[in-house]
Amino acid sequence: MYLAQIHVTYKPSILDPQGVAIKDAMHRLDFDTVTDVTQGKYFEVTLSADSAADAEAEIEAICDRLLANPNMETYRYDVKELANQ
Amino acid sequence: MYLAQIHVTYKPSILDPQGVAIKDAMHRLDFDTVTDVTQGKYFEVTLSADSAADAEAEIEAICDRLLANPNMETYRYDVKELANQ
Repeated sequence: MYLAQIHVTYKPSILDPQGVAIKDAMHRLDFDTVTDVTQGKYFEVTLSADSAADAEAEIEAICDRLLANPNMETYRYDVKELANQ
Repeated sequence: MYLAQIHVTYKPSILDPQGVAIKDAMHRLDFDTVTDVTQGKYFEVTLSADSAADAEAEIEAICDRLLANPNMETYRYDVKELANQ
């Protein structure tokens, strides 16, 4: 079994209104030292695979087809083998 | 300047309907090797601080007061100093 930790974030060129709204909220709470905020999605996916390479290929296909919008988002992932439970 | 990478996820005891829905969607796309999916929020916060310890204290206060719902969510963060740009 493998565990994939996936981060999906906006591409740098894309405006992140959510991040701007959160930064404004922080300033209203007097967290004035904050200069920038971006928000993304974080997934943990557990899957079975014959090898780490197979697991990574599956995760890449899952990101491309489901988790990330290729027009606006980019993703990165780490895959590690889980100890047999 | 410091960059904080923050993960906010559901506590293990909390049902994650979003994660269940995403897993079902993966199965409909024939990603049958997936056995579990959890979704959380990921933030990158840039802030100025006199020291790493000060930056961490500020981030902890931001998580407690704004980014994480203490009843349902838990958070973890990494803080690193940014090279002077």
